[in-house]
Amino acid sequence: MAEEYPVYGRIDGPIVMIGFGSIGKGTWPLIERHFDYDADKFTVIEPDPRQTNFLRQHKINHVTTRLTPENYREVLGGLFSEGKGFCVNLSVDTSSLDIMKFCREIGVLYIDTVVEPWAGFYFDTENNAERTNYALRQKVRDEKAANPGGTTAVSCCGANPGMVSWFVKEALLTLARDTGRSVDTPSDRAGWGKLMQSLGVQGVHIAERDTQARRQPRPRGVFVNTWSVEGFIAEGFQPAELGWGTHEPWFPENGHSHDTGCKAGIWIERPGAITRVHTWCPTPGPQFGFLVTHNEAISISDYYTVGDKDAPDFRPTCHYAYHPSDDAVLSLHEMFGSGRQQEKHHILDVDEIVEGIDELGVLLYGHEKNALWYGSRLSNDETRDLAPYQNATGMQVTSAVLAGMVWAIENPQAGIVETDEMDHARCLEVQTPYLGPVEAHYTDWTPLQDRWEHFPEDIDETEPWAFRNVLAT
Amino acid sequence: MAEEYPVYGRIDGPIVMIGFGSIGKGTWPLIERHFDYDADKFTVIEPDPRQTNFLRQHKINHVTTRLTPENYREVLGGLFSEGKGFCVNLSVDTSSLDIMKFCREIGVLYIDTVVEPWAGFYFDTENNAERTNYALRQKVRDEKAANPGGTTAVSCCGANPGMVSWFVKEALLTLARDTGRSVDTPSDRAGWGKLMQSLGVQGVHIAERDTQARRQPRPRGVFVNTWSVEGFIAEGFQPAELGWGTHEPWFPENGHSHDTGCKAGIWIERPGAITRVHTWCPTPGPQFGFLVTHNEAISISDYYTVGDKDAPDFRPTCHYAYHPSDDAVLSLHEMFGSGRQQEKHHILDVDEIVEGIDELGVLLYGHEKNALWYGSRLSNDETRDLAPYQNATGMQVTSAVLAGMVWAIENPQAGIVETDEMDHARCLEVQTPYLGPVEAHYTDWTPLQDRWEHFPEDIDETEPWAFRNVLAT
Ligand SMILES: NC(=O)c1ccc[n+]([C@@H]2O[C@H](COP(=O)([O-])OP(=O)(O)OC[C@H]3O[C@@H](n4cnc5c(N)ncnc54)[C@H](O)[C@@H]3O)[C@@H](O)[C@H]2O)c1
Ligand SMILES: NC(=O)c1ccc[n+]([C@@H]2O[C@H](COP(=O)([O-])OP(=O)(O)OC[C@H]3O[C@@H](n4cnc5c(N)ncnc54)[C@H](O)[C@@H]3O)[C@@H](O)[C@H]2O)c1
Repeated sequence: MAEEYPVYGRIDGPIVMIGFGSIGKGTWPLIERHFDYDADKFTVIEPDPRQTNFLRQHKINHVTTRLTPENYREVLGGLFSEGKGFCVNLSVDTSSLDIMKFCREIGVLYIDTVVEPWAGFYFDTENNAERTNYALRQKVRDEKAANPGGTTAVSCCGANPGMVSWFVKEALLTLARDTGRSVDTPSDRAGWGKLMQSLGVQGVHIAERDTQARRQPRPRGVFVNTWSVEGFIAEGFQPAELGWGTHEPWFPENGHSHDTGCKAGIWIERPGAITRVHTWCPTPGPQFGFLVTHNEAISISDYYTVGDKDAPDFRPTCHYAYHPSDDAVLSLHEMFGSGRQQEKHHILDVDEIVEGIDELGVLLYGHEKNALWYGSRLSNDETRDLAPYQNATGMQVTSAVLAGMVWAIENPQAGIVETDEMDHARCLEVQTPYLGPVEAHYTDWTPLQDRWEHFPEDIDETEPWAFRNVLAT
Repeated sequence: MAEEYPVYGRIDGPIVMIGFGSIGKGTWPLIERHFDYDADKFTVIEPDPRQTNFLRQHKINHVTTRLTPENYREVLGGLFSEGKGFCVNLSVDTSSLDIMKFCREIGVLYIDTVVEPWAGFYFDTENNAERTNYALRQKVRDEKAANPGGTTAVSCCGANPGMVSWFVKEALLTLARDTGRSVDTPSDRAGWGKLMQSLGVQGVHIAERDTQARRQPRPRGVFVNTWSVEGFIAEGFQPAELGWGTHEPWFPENGHSHDTGCKAGIWIERPGAITRVHTWCPTPGPQFGFLVTHNEAISISDYYTVGDKDAPDFRPTCHYAYHPSDDAVLSLHEMFGSGRQQEKHHILDVDEIVEGIDELGVLLYGHEKNALWYGSRLSNDETRDLAPYQNATGMQVTSAVLAGMVWAIENPQAGIVETDEMDHARCLEVQTPYLGPVEAHYTDWTPLQDRWEHFPEDIDETEPWAFRNVLAT
């Protein structure tokens, strides 16, 4: 059983992991396995006392401080007193932007999986436009523009946002090949945008079906999920959001665009997690997904924009279409039905899950082959053999963090980057061993198919993939 | 363990049970237990060969003919050649009206649990107004008006439609008592209507929460339910429908009223099983229910109408607000998301269910004590001790059939009746031993409470119980 795990390089100085929840705990063994570093200098910041025992048993340095706007400079400054090292932010309720800025100030590499705000932001902010991921992301983009280059900080490098941006590129190259084009891999953003445009892609669903399940029926009053319940509830109550493509013939009634920033996205006056879209994944075929807001919906639409941002020649529509685990579907139904968040939270553990996979990919649609799903179909069973302390959902995230960290130590002066801006081939080379089957599937399904019998629906027959048709009535 | 089961009377002549599905199989032991009859004259008509073995093992006469518009007179005429007996119709895909008319023609008592049409009707009928339960019920009411009196035929005597109409009366008497009124039990429809009006009741939810569950996670592609899957899918794809009360200050955009008939109901251009309403049950508190069309929504609004049907002084709003078992919620989500009916169906069996109750009652709202839920909270565990071959959902239905049969043999010349028109006290006397805890619960919840934070909703603050507020956005 002696397996060879590549060691991708040395991390000099301290490694500080912020947050040791489902993702932090799963990332730790990958860092151990794939980097050379001084174990004494690995520290976890985790305020939840339920993690303390594990951390102690595994002899991991840890502090139980809850990072706040008031203390983060002091706490991190103390841990990174050498002015080097790596900050791996896998927490909720901490400001990605503030921590990233501070790390760059003191010359410490940084990575996170989401643009997270400080505690309270999601529910205390009154203005919905300010609560969007568009607004959160734009602040990071503005910081990048104001302070280009410098110490590398990788923004939003999980499964999605993260890995899926690399899949979009692989899917474009696959589609180019399969439609008989001979293309060189583009080397810059303009090249990628032109490639997507020339292939006739109208948009991208981040199309996910999580079939992981345990034997115990979901108890009432417990929100059950396969990753952070807090994170999912927070994003589920943000407005539904999507990158808005140039092919859309119609604008949603309760939709809003933005006056400032990249202009690539719009938001809708409804919580994302109660807004259903028609989408497609290999295992179920057509299914409902929830239009939960995600950073990548904006970043991908922005990245592939061709021409002027205010009047682009081409921009793809892009959004998340998430069918979480059945227990999470029921949890959402209960939460919205009762008008109350469940007080008890539970993340399904790799060892209680008895079946299922996390099927997470990108569905590129509107082109001459109609639609192509490209993604990872990782089972929980396979995950168990790959690395400890995580289910399939976690593994897709933690392996993206690993890939992002490798890329960062290989590109330590790249400034603030999103995953669209990284070398997707190198990143997938590192990540793929952890993704189970990574497959391309074409389908002739469109959102015009399989509508309700007998009831008129407000659909546009002339544009099968119009968002108007994708949005469920 | 020797229990005394009352024998309610003798059924002379043949007993023919049409359909031996989840309800038929559960009704059979109750008939055996509570009536005196000639076992040789009990016959089941059941075309599904999967039931044959059980019927043979239990020495039950049976024929495997599928009733059709062409053969029903011949088949039933043969079985009822004596011109007496009881026809217990517990099938899908047979016309309640045609069979009821024929039974009355030949002097045979009749009961069913739904106004069912012949096979094909639900999905082949193009016109949505014709597919409503309003239309199906009105034909039975027209037959009653055209041919009053005569042999008793009890229409729609299951749990709901059925038992819940008796609960409405008990709830009204409870509310009258609890608000300090001294009322005699009304003896006719006018009296009941006036009582409801005088109590200030604005409407009634048939408010149900089914928490029955098994250990096995729901397999993809299987519609799982606690009673007829075929029946639920058929009614789920009928238009959403409700009895429309005089207090409603607003009319739904895609709503339609009827030009003929009792005028008590309206329908909405959406399948009922994808239309969510805010409702309340004792176990979950506030929850989503589905606005699935049901006969009782119309019959109750009709029965309690005070004044002229075209411009009534008072009429309650009434509709179903159904939270089926979690597996059925997931089955609906899959069905509407894929745009396809699952080919595999499964009814949860009493012995595989590991937990849960069917909490089925009536929520009378809008009065001085705000809202009163009155109903049965029968657990599957208790059901197992009460009678064989059924889960809690089935028991609530089969015991209503029993009560209706008792009432029919005690009132053999009552003509066509709905459960609202029967002696609720006598019926509940027969049924209650099979209902587990039957309880009254007041709540101060209204649909104005616990709305989404942060998002504007189209609600009417001045009329808490307006249907506009009940209908989920
Ligand atoms: N991009 C992706 O694909 C992806 C996928 C899953 C999760 N995520 C994100 O990763 C993060 C972690 O997810 P998870 O499933 O591990 O969540 P989790 O809820 O299991 O863990 C989050 C941890 O953060 C800790 N924490 C809370 N407040 C803190 C503070 N002020 N300072 C320090 N730590 C604090 C909590 O105690 C908890 O242990 C979340 O932000 C989530 O949104 C991203
Ligand atoms: N009022 C209520 O509360 C209530 C509750 C549950 C069910 N129901 C109704 O009771 C009926 C039976 O429900 P179930 O759960 O037993 O359904 P089921 O699907 O388990 O059984 C229905 C049976 O009818 C038989 N059948 C089909 N076509 C037939 C035909 N042409 N002739 C004779 N038999 C035929 C089927 O073979 C099947 O065994 C349904 O109409 C259902 O809607 C009413």
